[in-house]
Amino acid sequence: MNLDDLLKQDSEWLKGTGPYSNIVISSRVRLARNLDKMPFSHWAQRKKQEEIMNMIIDAANATNYLKGSMVYRIRDLSETDRMFLVERHLMSPEHAKDGEFKALIMDPKEVVSIMVNEEDHMRIQAMQSGFNLMEAWRIADEVDTELSKQLPYAYSPKYGYLTACPTNTGTGLRGSIMVHLPALVFSTQIERVLNATAKLGLNIRGLYGEGTEASGNLFQVSNQVSLGRSEADIIDNIERIMRQIVDKEEAARKILLTKNHEAIVDRVWRAYGTLKSAHIITSTETIALLSAIRLGVELGVIKNLTRQEVNELFIITQPAHLQKLEGKFLDASDRDLKRADIIRKKIE
Amino acid sequence: MNLDDLLKQDSEWLKGTGPYSNIVISSRVRLARNLDKMPFSHWAQRKKQEEIMNMIIDAANATNYLKGSMVYRIRDLSETDRMFLVERHLMSPEHAKDGEFKALIMDPKEVVSIMVNEEDHMRIQAMQSGFNLMEAWRIADEVDTELSKQLPYAYSPKYGYLTACPTNTGTGLRGSIMVHLPALVFSTQIERVLNATAKLGLNIRGLYGEGTEASGNLFQVSNQVSLGRSEADIIDNIERIMRQIVDKEEAARKILLTKNHEAIVDRVWRAYGTLKSAHIITSTETIALLSAIRLGVELGVIKNLTRQEVNELFIITQPAHLQKLEGKFLDASDRDLKRADIIRKKIE
Repeated sequence: MNLDDLLKQDSEWLKGTGPYSNIVISSRVRLARNLDKMPFSHWAQRKKQEEIMNMIIDAANATNYLKGSMVYRIRDLSETDRMFLVERHLMSPEHAKDGEFKALIMDPKEVVSIMVNEEDHMRIQAMQSGFNLMEAWRIADEVDTELSKQLPYAYSPKYGYLTACPTNTGTGLRGSIMVHLPALVFSTQIERVLNATAKLGLNIRGLYGEGTEASGNLFQVSNQVSLGRSEADIIDNIERIMRQIVDKEEAARKILLTKNHEAIVDRVWRAYGTLKSAHIITSTETIALLSAIRLGVELGVIKNLTRQEVNELFIITQPAHLQKLEGKFLDASDRDLKRADIIRKKIE
Repeated sequence: MNLDDLLKQDSEWLKGTGPYSNIVISSRVRLARNLDKMPFSHWAQRKKQEEIMNMIIDAANATNYLKGSMVYRIRDLSETDRMFLVERHLMSPEHAKDGEFKALIMDPKEVVSIMVNEEDHMRIQAMQSGFNLMEAWRIADEVDTELSKQLPYAYSPKYGYLTACPTNTGTGLRGSIMVHLPALVFSTQIERVLNATAKLGLNIRGLYGEGTEASGNLFQVSNQVSLGRSEADIIDNIERIMRQIVDKEEAARKILLTKNHEAIVDRVWRAYGTLKSAHIITSTETIALLSAIRLGVELGVIKNLTRQEVNELFIITQPAHLQKLEGKFLDASDRDLKRADIIRKKIE
């Protein structure tokens, strides 16, 4: 299997399945781990960086879960391929930057990926579609346990897992949930939800753009603190608060359908009409319109598209995906044409 | 024939036929006439106003052209019917306001109409679709000549026809041409055209809104001065300058199709997509989108609609037309729903 084969499958984070997938896009757990007695990646000499990378790749190949995984040296990947992996949420934008001994290990199902020599020696990520943080945690934990048998971790009985940045020390765990909150935005309740969530100790930010201006009404909720609580407590806390947000969004959607029916039908179909007709369209506008269409599909206003089809459009209209589909470099204005083209054909 | 029957026919001013009707919507000549030895309408007592009105109606009935015309006392018309006549450009908004002895005389083809007791005793209007000012003048002149045999006009050998407002004195003639200039607006040449036209002694203003912000890219060009030149000279001057504007718009359209092809196709189809999909739409947005669609039809980008169909949408989506079609009063938000409804059905 090579990178291009990923184009043929649904990205785990946008599969559109799993609990509450009408509102929750995906759940992700990320564990920060470092090797004992080795300098952190940014401080390590080239030799050491290489040694770290090789140790981790060898260890991964020796686990049941990651045996036969795809392994990439970042420097060997084209700019487009790097962006492509970022767009599929398999690695961070920071990891896509140059670095001789950076690597990415990932299983072909795109559930687990490990960034090697990003900020920490390892960032183990497990992704699940829908509201499924506990399962993402179970998988990350399984991979972590297997790896810990191969690798000596930097661990302090007092502080827990040691990390390059102190904010990750302790459990090294960051749980995050991506959620689609168009009804809370439309009904102008989002500001209150953002503030309340922050007060409860979670970060909430727009996936594209900050605050109430978040394009596409997509928000990412994650824990602020990874120290002083158990992994199960952290996961449980996110899930509990997230459940309340999901309930609020569901209530807001019901009210939209009764009290603002015409306005929401208008909004949804206008988005549909524009996507079906535009010949030039930017990524930002696409996200905003797909968000409205997704809401329309979930509310039963649009019946000729499925959630999966909308999600696929979210994915394939991103810059690197467009270029891989086209098989060549496209500058921004070429992409705006191609994007409109692909959307028109898919929606027809 | 009654007012509602007009709904079944194309308004002369938006028929979409005649010379250069890809760019020129319509041509209109309006003659201001007053009766000799009678006070102007605004100064006249009720008795006198009534006498003036009856004299004019009787005279019109005695002409060949207007024999058997439709005659309405404005005070007998509902608010909706008055708006309806204004929307069809058969009378001015001022004439729609209350006034016991105001009347409207019009032929059933909507080519000629006479406002009685507006600012002047008579405003004789002749309308022609397309670039046809000379023919509009010929018709207005024919009606005027017939009426002048029945009615004593207020005329001074020195000043010409006397009018309530001195700016209309002389020929009493106002020739105007309504023109669609989307390519000059799109290519930002419109400012220069507006300025040049004004310097050449013509008024040019947006049909809906002023200056470069004119909604729908519809502009009305008319003579500033009606004194000191013959009727033929005035008409000829407007036609000559108008011809240049039409040429410029045609050239700008050709350039759009070659140099801005994708941008214009995008603009046109987005307008189409929105009109085909919206469930709530204001009059102002409708005009702007129909303007883009009209350009699309003229450029051959949109092939499944005709100019006549687009023009019909311009007409029937106006507030009074919507209400007459629906047969009942609709407030602004009801109209926005109904308008979207009608457009969706027509475009399907």
